[in-house]
Amino acid sequence: MACITIFNPSPTAVPLHHSRGNPKMSLPSTDPLTTAGRFLWGRSLPPQPLITAVRTTWSTVWHLMMRQLAPSSSTGSYSRPAGSFPSIDLALYPPTASLHLYAALSCPWAHRTLIVRAIKSLEPFLPVSIAAPGPDGPWEFPSSSVHAGDLVPGPDRANGRRTLRDVYGMRRGGYDGRSTVPMLWDVDKRDVACNESYEIIKFLNSWQRNADNNDIDLYPSQLQKEIEEWNRIIYPSVNNGVYRCGFAQSQEAYDEAVNALFDTLDTLESHLGTNRYLCGDVLTLADVCLFTTLIRFDLVYYVLFKCTKKKLVEYPNLHSYTRDIYQIPKVAETCNFEAIMDGYFRTLFPLNPGGIRPALPSACKPDVLSKPHGRDSVCSNGLTSFLVLSRGQSMQ
Amino acid sequence: MACITIFNPSPTAVPLHHSRGNPKMSLPSTDPLTTAGRFLWGRSLPPQPLITAVRTTWSTVWHLMMRQLAPSSSTGSYSRPAGSFPSIDLALYPPTASLHLYAALSCPWAHRTLIVRAIKSLEPFLPVSIAAPGPDGPWEFPSSSVHAGDLVPGPDRANGRRTLRDVYGMRRGGYDGRSTVPMLWDVDKRDVACNESYEIIKFLNSWQRNADNNDIDLYPSQLQKEIEEWNRIIYPSVNNGVYRCGFAQSQEAYDEAVNALFDTLDTLESHLGTNRYLCGDVLTLADVCLFTTLIRFDLVYYVLFKCTKKKLVEYPNLHSYTRDIYQIPKVAETCNFEAIMDGYFRTLFPLNPGGIRPALPSACKPDVLSKPHGRDSVCSNGLTSFLVLSRGQSMQ
Repeated sequence: MACITIFNPSPTAVPLHHSRGNPKMSLPSTDPLTTAGRFLWGRSLPPQPLITAVRTTWSTVWHLMMRQLAPSSSTGSYSRPAGSFPSIDLALYPPTASLHLYAALSCPWAHRTLIVRAIKSLEPFLPVSIAAPGPDGPWEFPSSSVHAGDLVPGPDRANGRRTLRDVYGMRRGGYDGRSTVPMLWDVDKRDVACNESYEIIKFLNSWQRNADNNDIDLYPSQLQKEIEEWNRIIYPSVNNGVYRCGFAQSQEAYDEAVNALFDTLDTLESHLGTNRYLCGDVLTLADVCLFTTLIRFDLVYYVLFKCTKKKLVEYPNLHSYTRDIYQIPKVAETCNFEAIMDGYFRTLFPLNPGGIRPALPSACKPDVLSKPHGRDSVCSNGLTSFLVLSRGQSMQ
Repeated sequence: MACITIFNPSPTAVPLHHSRGNPKMSLPSTDPLTTAGRFLWGRSLPPQPLITAVRTTWSTVWHLMMRQLAPSSSTGSYSRPAGSFPSIDLALYPPTASLHLYAALSCPWAHRTLIVRAIKSLEPFLPVSIAAPGPDGPWEFPSSSVHAGDLVPGPDRANGRRTLRDVYGMRRGGYDGRSTVPMLWDVDKRDVACNESYEIIKFLNSWQRNADNNDIDLYPSQLQKEIEEWNRIIYPSVNNGVYRCGFAQSQEAYDEAVNALFDTLDTLESHLGTNRYLCGDVLTLADVCLFTTLIRFDLVYYVLFKCTKKKLVEYPNLHSYTRDIYQIPKVAETCNFEAIMDGYFRTLFPLNPGGIRPALPSACKPDVLSKPHGRDSVCSNGLTSFLVLSRGQSMQ
């Protein structure tokens, strides 16, 4: 008989188990505390006052950890701290400037820079070092990599340092801010050029480094207002919104964040029903910024950050839009799903105490993402290829 | 500007924050530990050795709690303990026997009994008391209920006790086993008749209590072998399989459980493409047993137990099959999604330290589950209504 259980596997029933010495139970007794527990209360659970104490302690420690990890307002809402390199002066970086990009594969903000670097074909002119999360936080550069290619964690190719903190520390006068990715390093000045992702991608789009690609413009002047408008909507509720869901420290803060997130996703789903990209027929930086959150949605945010109203795969337009961008040449190579899952599930231990990494969702497999997206027909002018607006070209 | 962050919100970067006194950060300083932390390391995170210590402690405590909550093998696999009322002697319970059912709304095993009670129209003959999870485990009977109907948590209608443990304790000679739901109580003998869900539903199906419904047979003799065969497949990999995913204490144990779960779901998806129910055209106990796990799948197991390969809504046949059963008269009333989510997310604190309850997935809303299921066309004999095999009717 298969279904022979007579106890209730609903967790709420477990504390009531008080039978001792049931020979079918096999608790490992390798740790002293478990052994002590078995001596004190047999094979059943600890007495209820102890459970209450453990539960209260556990919850309190969680709140303390989360307050350190994710600063929150008095209502438990995640409040993102501001930083220290908010802009980049394009005039300081002529086409001949020697720059180096520090990035990581799990981080959606660093991912933006890798995508723009790829679309603008800046690879020969902008070398990259990929950091990986160390055991307890710092971005580290693995000393060797078994993989080929430059989009895998590997040594610091610009400065040969072990951690990103060491690189930041090379600045004249030192550095006491957050050692974050992405970071654009000025090789000549041995200083941080910028570490704000949106500033970096605007810079990379404008940088006159690759003469062959100067006509690819992801931030055309006639669309800049619209791009900024989209960012004003998408940044707080989606890009940062998923973090506001996951880092919420009260039910009210979570509810507010999750409703705002899905309200915006509903809006985007509707908008993308009649627009191939956010600003119409051309890919812009607004799409790059949205994409790096969407590609992580079913993979990480749905489960770990409790963004549970819908999976991305349940939004037909958003999902085909994501596939459309994923299929732009060289973009798929910037998406490393193993690294993304590891970066969240193994590092964010307050949210995933067991450190177990979930199975890859079927809808996130590369072969599913490579299926025809059919977005060409959404394109109002009937062009069927990946489009970018050439510099100086007027809008139709 | 929307996207002004210059720090990396990837959690791995957060420990590197060392700037003090950033005026834009607003950490609540209501607890003494946070205040002490701010004095010691400013507004940044604690030093790395402290993080490492906290992480190690956190993970160790989690493993200790999980070993008490969910007994595991030496490889970290969840091992379900066996229990003490494995069978029920039908001969002891004539149609005139006075019985009472103790159940809970979150528990999938108790849910089985509520469904069979409803389908067999046993409500007038088998009163029920619904327990709710108390703050730290014991099933409790709320003293009053604001809701109407008998399928809401309320007082113990049979014995007037405060907790289910008190009811079990009424047995002659006492009771030191798990006080679990479902539990069938013998009112005359003041004793537990059975608390094994599968035994109870087989009994309720056979109990000649309601003369009007004696022709409804969910366990017809000619299908019993097939039903048991399905249970042998579904119980370990699905019913118990979701718990094996959620309670796994090692990556290997989780991987094994999650692969077995989805292998079986894939098999079921295929089988249900050509069979309206598991055993063909008639609903049986095998379907009842599968249904109570499926109806909780997108609601709880996908997120909390990391059953992440696919949501149920991504399986067209399994999803329409679930809707088909949900739409059987009186079954929907046994499905209380709020109670189910609370029962898992608020009670299983080792797996959900913050206690935050995720948003209800859109696909789990009653109006979605009430959409036409189209399963009638799968029915090979062309009958279109909800079918049960009449006692003695031969299979075609």
